[in-house]
Amino acid sequence: MSLFVKKFGGTSLATLDHIKRVAEKIIKARDQGDDVVVVVSAMGHETDRLATLAKEIGANDSNLHREVDVLLSTGEQVTTALLTMTLIKMGCQAKSYTGGQVSITTNTVHTKARILDINVDKLQADIAKGTIAVVAGFQGVDENQNITTIGRGGSDTTAAALASVLGADECQIYTDVEGVFTTDPRVVEGARCLSRNTFEEMLELASLGSRVLHSRAVEIASKYKVPIRVLSTFSDAEGTLITNEDNETMEKPIISGIAFTRDEAKLTVLGVPDIPGVAAQILGPVSDANVEVDMIVQNVAADKSTDFTFTVRREDYDAAMKILNKVANDVGAREVSGDNKIAKLSLVGVGMRSHAGVASKMFQVLFDESINIQMISTSEIKISVVVAEKYIELAVRALHSAFDLDKD
Amino acid sequence: MSLFVKKFGGTSLATLDHIKRVAEKIIKARDQGDDVVVVVSAMGHETDRLATLAKEIGANDSNLHREVDVLLSTGEQVTTALLTMTLIKMGCQAKSYTGGQVSITTNTVHTKARILDINVDKLQADIAKGTIAVVAGFQGVDENQNITTIGRGGSDTTAAALASVLGADECQIYTDVEGVFTTDPRVVEGARCLSRNTFEEMLELASLGSRVLHSRAVEIASKYKVPIRVLSTFSDAEGTLITNEDNETMEKPIISGIAFTRDEAKLTVLGVPDIPGVAAQILGPVSDANVEVDMIVQNVAADKSTDFTFTVRREDYDAAMKILNKVANDVGAREVSGDNKIAKLSLVGVGMRSHAGVASKMFQVLFDESINIQMISTSEIKISVVVAEKYIELAVRALHSAFDLDKD
Repeated sequence: MSLFVKKFGGTSLATLDHIKRVAEKIIKARDQGDDVVVVVSAMGHETDRLATLAKEIGANDSNLHREVDVLLSTGEQVTTALLTMTLIKMGCQAKSYTGGQVSITTNTVHTKARILDINVDKLQADIAKGTIAVVAGFQGVDENQNITTIGRGGSDTTAAALASVLGADECQIYTDVEGVFTTDPRVVEGARCLSRNTFEEMLELASLGSRVLHSRAVEIASKYKVPIRVLSTFSDAEGTLITNEDNETMEKPIISGIAFTRDEAKLTVLGVPDIPGVAAQILGPVSDANVEVDMIVQNVAADKSTDFTFTVRREDYDAAMKILNKVANDVGAREVSGDNKIAKLSLVGVGMRSHAGVASKMFQVLFDESINIQMISTSEIKISVVVAEKYIELAVRALHSAFDLDKD
Repeated sequence: MSLFVKKFGGTSLATLDHIKRVAEKIIKARDQGDDVVVVVSAMGHETDRLATLAKEIGANDSNLHREVDVLLSTGEQVTTALLTMTLIKMGCQAKSYTGGQVSITTNTVHTKARILDINVDKLQADIAKGTIAVVAGFQGVDENQNITTIGRGGSDTTAAALASVLGADECQIYTDVEGVFTTDPRVVEGARCLSRNTFEEMLELASLGSRVLHSRAVEIASKYKVPIRVLSTFSDAEGTLITNEDNETMEKPIISGIAFTRDEAKLTVLGVPDIPGVAAQILGPVSDANVEVDMIVQNVAADKSTDFTFTVRREDYDAAMKILNKVANDVGAREVSGDNKIAKLSLVGVGMRSHAGVASKMFQVLFDESINIQMISTSEIKISVVVAEKYIELAVRALHSAFDLDKD
């Protein structure tokens, strides 16, 4: 008998018919003798609908963020109730929980909170009684019972966190695709679904814009060694199992996949005095404004000054630019420039560690297509480049083919 | 400086433009130096939309009622967030509260819970700081933090309860009509808005189907001596002030208004043995099923047996009939009959106390229109009759005119 945390996303819960199908999946697992705890997102485009209302009022002001969380959290609450009713109607014992009711405690950074603690008493009591707990994803409460949300895609994170504290055998993320692909099938026809993947690779793929799984979910599952399975609500295929590298087959492919993301922007502070602490002085205020910084590149100094470039999500570009203009003045930099029409692409693969020449091959492929590389950043298992947004599909297709990702 | 609890209903909050208008009304009161605590209903037809989803799943089963409350309570939560954001955007300090956050504790009768206690600490701290608290109406939590709702029209009750525990100067119920009318203006053209009314009269009018105010709200306000004002969100008219009789002018009109309600059903147990305790034996199981019983009539016994009739809301008719068929057998009654095509009409007025002949005039008017009276029930300040539903408009118009309610 295994314990599964099953998370269903908005497209899997878009209508009452969808919800019924989800309930059938849950009951099927139960009938096979397994225990199930369920995490749900909001129905279909409900979060978007609510966010649009907030936007119309002008809720990007941070002093409105407490209320934005009160608003958005209703989306998941609705789904927990509807799915729980459906399960009860189909003969199960089931019970819904808001983030607050199941004691998912977070910090107070509204709209981007972090989970601090989960009390599993109620859930374990439910499991012992054979009651299926249906938990609202994406939300929690701070220590004063203010409602918080943990950022877009946060239901994956809720699921991984619950699977970790409950010691689940698998955290199963149900979505509308078959699993994790070598790259986006909408861009590359030959993209394949991977049967297995490592946390490390998945972390790079997720954080780099492969949309099937939220990177924080992977981080948590990796830390607590809970396997994640990404699979489709609409088929019975096995999906992609994501585990520690140890469990994998011996011979690894060099590259597992190509992730890319379009909604990027870069900012450069030019002529920064090359003195210790200046990077922190620049990034501190950006981070204080809760703008997530992604790639950071700094070249060696020439003439006692250096250029400092980093990327942010495109929606944060204006806020970051405003902060930088002030900061640049404070640190005595020459000027600030930026570009919000860029995209990022990454080759990811644990096999890269033991194979030289991946980077040079990648750069050659892009050169052959006359694509200019604006930034480069590497880690042990990935190479990322920033290019002009208009080249992104071309770059992904060329690399997918050059690295034989379309072949099994 | 006064403290007002202002409650806004769904039609007053149907769109973001409506919400802005409501925010302006609140700010206007604040600018006049008064303290305000706000209670809101769900936007427009949101509760109906959610209830329809629940109904499609089949949520009339009582074992689904916990989840129905989880579902329905989101409607008010959305409105608190949107109104609070709007107030902050317009320069106010404001903060939203769910029923649970403001500690509105209820019993656990899901979908029809009763308020047991309210902790006013947070609200009083907000008032002291000049922060406008925006509280979700209609909802609370039980002692185990399960979400409860207190029945349709429950936001009025929330407002009256808050006004009472806060010792507010007035509980102001904003709606889409000008105030309390002598009867429904859609049925009688000459219906007039009353400038004042007593709790007693309002209690009869509210419980008898005059839709502007929930009877539980009136009960609470009357008990704690908090004046209620019913007024329109869409005008600046004074509305109707509802207070204790003492505050009224000396000479009272005999009749204040005519209430009526269409969605009624009656059930009769025929040939009930006339022994002590039999009424309790019949009504006990009905009440246990949380079916609200309204009029109860029992005639004097003939042949050691009697007939026992009562009315319920039409939606509860089938459930009540099912229970009665079993109970009739248990108590040795002859048979059960019923009619779910009836309507109820009541003349209400505190002046009735000192004037004889109101009942006989009422019955004469109905006789003149050839309307058969099926049941009669009276109290000190009201006379209610049950008639076939098809006669209800005719009956109301005839009585409104006969008792000069169209004249000031």
